[in-house]
Amino acid sequence: MSITVLIAPSGFKESLPVDDVTRAIARGVLRAMPDATLLSAPMVDGGEGTTRAIVNATSGQMIETRVTGPVGATVPSFWGLMGGKGPATAVIEMAAAAGLSLVPRDRRDPTLTTSRGVGELILQALDHGVQRILIGCGDSGINDGGAGMARALGARLLDAAGDELPEGGGALRHLARIDLGGLDPRLARTRIDVAVNWHNQLLGPKGVARVFGPQKGATPTQVEDLEQGLETYAALIRAQTGLDLGAMNGAGASGGLGAGLVAFAGATLHPRFDIMLDYLEFDHLLARADLVITAEGSLDGQSPYGKVPCEVSRRAEARGIPTIALAGTIGKGAQETFAHGISAFASIVKRPCSLEEAIAQGDKLLCRAAEDAMRMMMVGQRLERHARAA
Amino acid sequence: MSITVLIAPSGFKESLPVDDVTRAIARGVLRAMPDATLLSAPMVDGGEGTTRAIVNATSGQMIETRVTGPVGATVPSFWGLMGGKGPATAVIEMAAAAGLSLVPRDRRDPTLTTSRGVGELILQALDHGVQRILIGCGDSGINDGGAGMARALGARLLDAAGDELPEGGGALRHLARIDLGGLDPRLARTRIDVAVNWHNQLLGPKGVARVFGPQKGATPTQVEDLEQGLETYAALIRAQTGLDLGAMNGAGASGGLGAGLVAFAGATLHPRFDIMLDYLEFDHLLARADLVITAEGSLDGQSPYGKVPCEVSRRAEARGIPTIALAGTIGKGAQETFAHGISAFASIVKRPCSLEEAIAQGDKLLCRAAEDAMRMMMVGQRLERHARAA
Repeated sequence: MSITVLIAPSGFKESLPVDDVTRAIARGVLRAMPDATLLSAPMVDGGEGTTRAIVNATSGQMIETRVTGPVGATVPSFWGLMGGKGPATAVIEMAAAAGLSLVPRDRRDPTLTTSRGVGELILQALDHGVQRILIGCGDSGINDGGAGMARALGARLLDAAGDELPEGGGALRHLARIDLGGLDPRLARTRIDVAVNWHNQLLGPKGVARVFGPQKGATPTQVEDLEQGLETYAALIRAQTGLDLGAMNGAGASGGLGAGLVAFAGATLHPRFDIMLDYLEFDHLLARADLVITAEGSLDGQSPYGKVPCEVSRRAEARGIPTIALAGTIGKGAQETFAHGISAFASIVKRPCSLEEAIAQGDKLLCRAAEDAMRMMMVGQRLERHARAA
Repeated sequence: MSITVLIAPSGFKESLPVDDVTRAIARGVLRAMPDATLLSAPMVDGGEGTTRAIVNATSGQMIETRVTGPVGATVPSFWGLMGGKGPATAVIEMAAAAGLSLVPRDRRDPTLTTSRGVGELILQALDHGVQRILIGCGDSGINDGGAGMARALGARLLDAAGDELPEGGGALRHLARIDLGGLDPRLARTRIDVAVNWHNQLLGPKGVARVFGPQKGATPTQVEDLEQGLETYAALIRAQTGLDLGAMNGAGASGGLGAGLVAFAGATLHPRFDIMLDYLEFDHLLARADLVITAEGSLDGQSPYGKVPCEVSRRAEARGIPTIALAGTIGKGAQETFAHGISAFASIVKRPCSLEEAIAQGDKLLCRAAEDAMRMMMVGQRLERHARAA
């Protein structure tokens, strides 16, 4: 009796990308259970690596291109077309056009960096005629509230004198009027969903400027300038459209890009894993699965709070499907995951070893851990068969 | 449907005695499966710790005493009475009377050390009226072929002049005649079984003097003296009794004590785990078990060659019962154990850590590993139940 295993892991931070994790687990499962049917849903959070993982998972297509980078110069970029039978769907990770890794270390000034390239990627997707666009937030190097993107899409941001503002979040303090007349009309007939960290606020003490500005290179003074700029920006948007971005969950994602996408592109923000799982048709995959295997670098008491393993296991449990978690470190509080749908977990570590060794051998260890977990599970299958026969 | 788990681990060398290992696993199993029925068979090899483990496992009794130690001075010692319904049975580990740890470092001269104390323990057991004696070999500090023990039991070992030889293996070169007339007559009506390493030879290049003499402190010259002594001893025993100890498996166990036990006490030598499992009524325990959990410090390609996990798993497999192995280190070649009845294995290590950390937390890690393995197994039970219901 063959079982169907849905492999839905996270990448292992800074050691093993999610596709590698998925493949290593798949190899291990098949070593123990050669007749298993495998499904996969690589769990990505919208940040770097999201596009490639979704394209790979759906046998889609990567599209290489060039866009205006966060410091103005043109940079190599990309977006993806999902494969499969659904509506034509583009996948964009904002980091591919305005990520922190595209900002040279000596130019990390988020009062100047722009999200314009994200708008350019959206236009390319529109030109391609897609019906849906999934935009992943995360790993951004900007703090312009999506103003650069808005202008790429046709909006005009003007100061009191009626002149166009310069690029960057620092100039938003001088925003006096927004002209939406030139916005690309295709936006209105295209569904745009954005994967955000649901807790990223646009304004205030927990707003994007104050929480993330310093990581992107802002000085304390610049942080206050950015905060003021986003306040002005949000107030004008509210006045002109009625949207209250200051109160909206996720509006602060990626330097406020979330806010801009809602205001100018008619996008909808979603908790990142909800929308990722939706686009990956996770529920359809779950409906076919007997067992889910998830994985992350660490499983511990924090895992129930927004980490991949429990995001996956809760959904599986809702359908009565058990989830096994594999992790480099089974840390303090890991047993709390039992209340969130994880039925069993195992470390990939097989002996006392250093973190460096474990990382260097991550692929092999993960494969073996999947195999070992399946073998342990198969002992239970055997016991149960035996008990039934008796 | 409750399952019965037989816990049959080894101790973890120099870190966790077998009773602690057994208890830690038991706690872990019950954490995952509170209604499991637990049986235990601590696997001991005849060396240090054997008596206590068997006494504990059978709810028997430890008997504290004093005997002649290996360097002649009286030492605290002990033997055990097995509990349970079987025939009255004594358990003696030779190391309790003639172990290397009883030989002060500055007196490690195996030409002089004696096994006399082992004979004194046997006499105490006979005085107690036992019907069977199980003697464990291992960790010895002597090389006298059991000559000291033989004299405690009433034999006389004489030189050409008819005088008693001094104690120790070095004097055996001068052995000219053995007088068996004074042997304790109770030996003839008492069953004595000896647990030995089946590969320990008495004589020759792989004989006990040459292989183990240096570890016990013998110089190269002393090694040759000891070899000559045991040759003389074996030749005389052969001449007087017909026993060919030179060709007998296990006769070299514990400095040749195996040979002496056969020649003077009418004992039978056995591969150590066979006889231990026999006395522990392992087959009766297996007949009640659904699952076996074994453990050892390391599981690797050497495990099938005489190590506890595979000794246990082969017997379980012969009865169609799956065995799970837990180990501190899952090493190279561990998968070879699958061909010897191990169905699945897991490391007790949960994260990158040093050997010292793993050892310091051994008890807790082992408990958790047993729990985690059971939970993984229970996923399989659940899948199988679900498959049956569908």
